[in-house]
Amino acid sequence: MAEADALDAFAVHAEYQVDDDANYQWRIARRPQGNVTPQDFGFHAEDIPDVGEGEVLLRTLYLGLAPVMRFYMQATARTGDAPLSIGDVIHGRGVAQIIKSRHPDWQEGQIVQGQIGWQTYKVSRMTAQEKFFAMPKNGLPAALGAGVLGMTGLSAFAGFFACGNPKEGDRMVLSGAAGGVGSMVSQLAANVAGCDVIGMAGGPEKCDFIREHGCSATIDYKSDDIGAMLDALRPEGIDLYFDNVGGETLEACLERLRMNARIVLCGSISEYTRDDPFKLSNYTRLRATDSIMRGFFVYNHLDRWDAVMDDLAGWIKDGKLKPVQDIAHGFQTMPRALANLYYGTNIGVQCCEVRGEPKEWI
Amino acid sequence: MAEADALDAFAVHAEYQVDDDANYQWRIARRPQGNVTPQDFGFHAEDIPDVGEGEVLLRTLYLGLAPVMRFYMQATARTGDAPLSIGDVIHGRGVAQIIKSRHPDWQEGQIVQGQIGWQTYKVSRMTAQEKFFAMPKNGLPAALGAGVLGMTGLSAFAGFFACGNPKEGDRMVLSGAAGGVGSMVSQLAANVAGCDVIGMAGGPEKCDFIREHGCSATIDYKSDDIGAMLDALRPEGIDLYFDNVGGETLEACLERLRMNARIVLCGSISEYTRDDPFKLSNYTRLRATDSIMRGFFVYNHLDRWDAVMDDLAGWIKDGKLKPVQDIAHGFQTMPRALANLYYGTNIGVQCCEVRGEPKEWI
Repeated sequence: MAEADALDAFAVHAEYQVDDDANYQWRIARRPQGNVTPQDFGFHAEDIPDVGEGEVLLRTLYLGLAPVMRFYMQATARTGDAPLSIGDVIHGRGVAQIIKSRHPDWQEGQIVQGQIGWQTYKVSRMTAQEKFFAMPKNGLPAALGAGVLGMTGLSAFAGFFACGNPKEGDRMVLSGAAGGVGSMVSQLAANVAGCDVIGMAGGPEKCDFIREHGCSATIDYKSDDIGAMLDALRPEGIDLYFDNVGGETLEACLERLRMNARIVLCGSISEYTRDDPFKLSNYTRLRATDSIMRGFFVYNHLDRWDAVMDDLAGWIKDGKLKPVQDIAHGFQTMPRALANLYYGTNIGVQCCEVRGEPKEWI
Repeated sequence: MAEADALDAFAVHAEYQVDDDANYQWRIARRPQGNVTPQDFGFHAEDIPDVGEGEVLLRTLYLGLAPVMRFYMQATARTGDAPLSIGDVIHGRGVAQIIKSRHPDWQEGQIVQGQIGWQTYKVSRMTAQEKFFAMPKNGLPAALGAGVLGMTGLSAFAGFFACGNPKEGDRMVLSGAAGGVGSMVSQLAANVAGCDVIGMAGGPEKCDFIREHGCSATIDYKSDDIGAMLDALRPEGIDLYFDNVGGETLEACLERLRMNARIVLCGSISEYTRDDPFKLSNYTRLRATDSIMRGFFVYNHLDRWDAVMDDLAGWIKDGKLKPVQDIAHGFQTMPRALANLYYGTNIGVQCCEVRGEPKEWI
């Protein structure tokens, strides 16, 4: 099935009505085989739940989309969250307003971000496992909590700075450069850390985009020979490779490491729709170059949340980091917004505006 | 061919005579196919070379053997040294005495270690590429320069401390624990860093040996199910895996990492006699555990040579590090001594006593 047809198939969801009188949910209807299809998602409406002692009622404003979500739906891979059963509400973080509170630490009216799930309301005890944070009043739009100032932002920051150990002048390569984490890392690398970033993205539009967001040169993985382009653009090799795609691209970069190089494994989107894992034939290049390959699990970096969000907000305000969010409109578009990630049609952080309001900046 | 038969085949070399009147050499007769065989090595005698201005004449005392040497002979893999042609003297580091010097920085009588090659004499300009170091007068035997106080020692020290970043109480796993680097790392880990070390080795004799040299428990890779033993001995997972073997053992440890774990890739002896590289299917476990896999190239750590050798010598003297060298006698036994490494018949650092004297401690 062609890419456009596959995405057009999600038009069947456009008729679904979402209003404020019920809690609408997207649940797992069946496990995805290969890429996600409309039939994998089940649309449900239930009563807005009551709020018990120690609980709050959340009204969802924005939800973020991330490639890992297909893993949640399959429950075959180990992720940071509990595996889901058929019929479960799909995991997802987002931004919500507390509209009723019987919890001593959380107030009505507060805008928060955390594990909401794909639903328009949620009753929560605000447990540690849900990882809720109050959104700081920093004059920036609440929507950013579903991405750039949310878990995507922490991934970009901690993955790049804590795991990549960047040095000024590093000859860097970044895959998935037009994606959620990638579009942030390219800007942090070029504008904060002083690295020279070659970005990979799919198609001329995305290559133009990443050139405007920190990349000094680009590789179009859909039309270019990646190895030949790396040879041409990185004749002296690679100091730092930030990997969002895995697979053959990782192998090509491993083959071209300089001494003391670093690879940050942030994502492997090239592998998310394969049934068999990619097998890496040249990991021993790490030995020959005294190099590090570091995996990166964002939930292990939560202790730095407040400081990271302050830094990111500061760089947004002084222009070093342009927040790029690709916003789908309407809760009924969530499945298609997820599919965008695997077809590579989004630019920046993919998220969904669940309600048209409040639009005000917090 | 059975292991014993394969090693017995090297008996054809026993008849070769080595004396002090000529420079005897082992050269590459043909590229090894699979494991090394006696026919891969050519024995030559030539005149002892003259010493020109700026040169020294070295008389070889001990030579070290290392698994990487098969790569030198094949010239197919990228190593830290120049590739060799058929007919070239095989690369090898060892200990020698300077018996004539026309070099301003080196004196007759000095005992040095460095890149000598498989020969009984060498004329050298003592270039940086040969990486010669004067042996310190520390009251320890000169033979240690061919291993424990040589490049093997630097590999163990830098690989374990600089790359492994060990923490007291680390639940560690060490493969190749009875080998040259392994027998040092097990002792440094247990006696200096305070780690709990489970060692892997082949056969009951080696397992007994490593239990006496730092390992609290052992896995016999020849008879045990490695995965089941790791599950039993490391039910909480692995903090630090020091890898001397690569392949399936690396994959089994990757599968069992704790959060914030570290893998040091020091060697891949399981792969040295394969034609196709092993393909690692589960490198993405590094992501789920926020872990580091670090390659390690010993020549990148030479700047710390003196300090490392001082530390190692100190630990030998205070009993924390028992030097274990498996010494073959006679230059004619070099090919068999190398074969020992791939058949796993050596314990500790494999080296060769080229001459019966001087035995005195320097």
